[in-house]
Amino acid sequence: MPESRVSPTDVWKRYEEMKHNPASLDLTRGKPAPEQLDLSSELMTILGPNDYRAADGTDCRNYGGLEGLPEMRALFAELLEVKPDQVMAAENSSLSLMYHTLAQAMLHGVPDGSRPWADQKPRFLCPCPGYDRHFSICEDLGIEMIPVAMTPEGPNMEVVERLVASDESIKGLWIVPKYGNPTGVTLSASVVSGLARMKTAAPDFRIMWDNAYAVHDLNDTPDTLANGLAEAEMAGRNNRLWLYASFSKVTFAGASVAAMASSVANIAWMRKHRANVTIGPDKLNQLRHTRFLKSAQGVRNHMRKHAAILRPKFEVVQRVLQRELGATGLAEWTRPRGGYFVSLDTQPGRAARVVKLAADAGVKLTPAGSAFPRGKDPFDRNIRIAPSFPSVSELERAMGVLAVSIACASAE
Amino acid sequence: MPESRVSPTDVWKRYEEMKHNPASLDLTRGKPAPEQLDLSSELMTILGPNDYRAADGTDCRNYGGLEGLPEMRALFAELLEVKPDQVMAAENSSLSLMYHTLAQAMLHGVPDGSRPWADQKPRFLCPCPGYDRHFSICEDLGIEMIPVAMTPEGPNMEVVERLVASDESIKGLWIVPKYGNPTGVTLSASVVSGLARMKTAAPDFRIMWDNAYAVHDLNDTPDTLANGLAEAEMAGRNNRLWLYASFSKVTFAGASVAAMASSVANIAWMRKHRANVTIGPDKLNQLRHTRFLKSAQGVRNHMRKHAAILRPKFEVVQRVLQRELGATGLAEWTRPRGGYFVSLDTQPGRAARVVKLAADAGVKLTPAGSAFPRGKDPFDRNIRIAPSFPSVSELERAMGVLAVSIACASAE
Repeated sequence: MPESRVSPTDVWKRYEEMKHNPASLDLTRGKPAPEQLDLSSELMTILGPNDYRAADGTDCRNYGGLEGLPEMRALFAELLEVKPDQVMAAENSSLSLMYHTLAQAMLHGVPDGSRPWADQKPRFLCPCPGYDRHFSICEDLGIEMIPVAMTPEGPNMEVVERLVASDESIKGLWIVPKYGNPTGVTLSASVVSGLARMKTAAPDFRIMWDNAYAVHDLNDTPDTLANGLAEAEMAGRNNRLWLYASFSKVTFAGASVAAMASSVANIAWMRKHRANVTIGPDKLNQLRHTRFLKSAQGVRNHMRKHAAILRPKFEVVQRVLQRELGATGLAEWTRPRGGYFVSLDTQPGRAARVVKLAADAGVKLTPAGSAFPRGKDPFDRNIRIAPSFPSVSELERAMGVLAVSIACASAE
Repeated sequence: MPESRVSPTDVWKRYEEMKHNPASLDLTRGKPAPEQLDLSSELMTILGPNDYRAADGTDCRNYGGLEGLPEMRALFAELLEVKPDQVMAAENSSLSLMYHTLAQAMLHGVPDGSRPWADQKPRFLCPCPGYDRHFSICEDLGIEMIPVAMTPEGPNMEVVERLVASDESIKGLWIVPKYGNPTGVTLSASVVSGLARMKTAAPDFRIMWDNAYAVHDLNDTPDTLANGLAEAEMAGRNNRLWLYASFSKVTFAGASVAAMASSVANIAWMRKHRANVTIGPDKLNQLRHTRFLKSAQGVRNHMRKHAAILRPKFEVVQRVLQRELGATGLAEWTRPRGGYFVSLDTQPGRAARVVKLAADAGVKLTPAGSAFPRGKDPFDRNIRIAPSFPSVSELERAMGVLAVSIACASAE
């Protein structure tokens, strides 16, 4: 039995003490900590004053190169197990690539489709809890969202398969396939296979495969993710997946390189439309990244240093939650082996109250419901915990506040 | 009289000689030459390994800061004569900011308007010859284009004022206000004032003020451009102008920083929508740029070095055209005091043929008609010359090929 298990009689007292001496801590966003950024300090100075040529002789300072540098495409290709001509390497934001993909689909339609999506009242399946910024893109572009429950293997495939088979207005599905945001769930092999192969009423159905945490393992027994693009290709559904990845949480979160991978036809389609948006990405930053990271193995070696910093933080989250709430039944939470988040469910109807109590005691959490389309958690129970940015001791304190806030909200 | 004036009898002989020994030269795009890029080589190494903090302490490596670094906004503000909170500093592409502004207007509408532009069959006035990539954005987004003739003072204001006053589907106008692409025209004070003050049937009319060549003077008697934003504000039309600028042709063409400036209300509107597209721009690159350029005066000093490289090239263009075609009446061309282009008009119906003849002799020109909406020059006479990238001797040769191609096409 945990020694300091919370009893309803003393939690308010503990809460008032915490509130009296408030923390000033932020668990809202999956930001790397400064020590993680320091791991890439070599990137700041890796190019000398005349060191601006790509391997093929391209002057990276000048205009051009809409698909990205060949060596940058090759590095993403190696990591994502695709061919370099299936990759477009871009600016610092994979979110921006996702937005543009869907904006172009809305305006012009996609390969396998006959019309702009905007003319077809398109709808997207949104496994949730999921990533709030995915849902914001749908809201911005006017794509209706249909929530689908997540299971420990991925989205509920029975529901997904039934919906996509019968409704041709359903044009796509969002998914973070590995260490999902916020659940930490990695899709099982059978879910990957199901998504790649399933019959869809819409001939131009697409999966937004946001592989944001492709190499972001916390320990030496990481989850493995099946190759969705290869599965789709084997099933004759070559254009089904649009894959996104970035080095944002590998090097510098705000100053890194993002990429998109898909079939050659999808990449050509994206290139055509992107030519109206930009003359090309920052190739110097791509050159910095290829010089620094070198190869897929170089990336993996580098990620072990991140894991060494992040692991103790994820352990604190588990330790405090287990200690304070482990035997109470007041909450359930995930135990991810990678990624940036822990997803916690309170008893139904408590999450918003918990977030408010924690805020009043100086701990900022992502607003309750954020992980659901339009910010509406039907059960008001989900809270996303982002433990990466604070120090271990700050995190220990913040998690204490959160746990006591949960106990208080549950005792009301 | 020019000594080697072209006579119809020998131009084909000269052309065939040139074709027999073809050049391999490209006058298509306004790319800086390598020596211009070398002027900023300090930018490559200006940040040390631990030099990542903005003036306000922001860690530029991490996420955030959607409006750009305060010091970057301040530098653009100083140059553009606006307040820092009227500026959003972004990624490496002003084109991308323009695209996003119009995409958001189409999807959501703009301040002063009541509905998304997409619901109103919007149309844009396109002074031409103009910048082909502006017109591509309209094509991509489904904005109909109405060509308006350029005069040496700017767009024909009589036509502009008449059209915008009577037709509320006309939502905007494209303009490169200083050293226009490709004409080199800088708007006169009365045109700036007219654009800022004119009555428009659409309450949410906007000018896409692409000030790409704000500081790109070729000599010490540059054109001066009136402050369009200030004029609009004085006229009570605070939201009329969306201004774009970048350091692309100040530092590294593909790896620089772009910005948008407008009323505070317009910037807030843009910020709101941009939050769905990205978490923030590359702040490290902004930090590099503020450290390197320092101030508006720093930028102006730097631009004098560019002018010293570009001036001889623009002189070659004038010298060869004058020598070969000056007294023939076969062509007219502009004599800009800044920017990146010379615009040449052949006799009607000759431009496409000239471009073909020059290509066959190894000189690549922008396709005839490029400077017009949908690539259609109604008179088939306009050719854009981009002299910045080749060396002076290459340019001399390329211009010779162009001049002889014009003489040949005219003699057919």
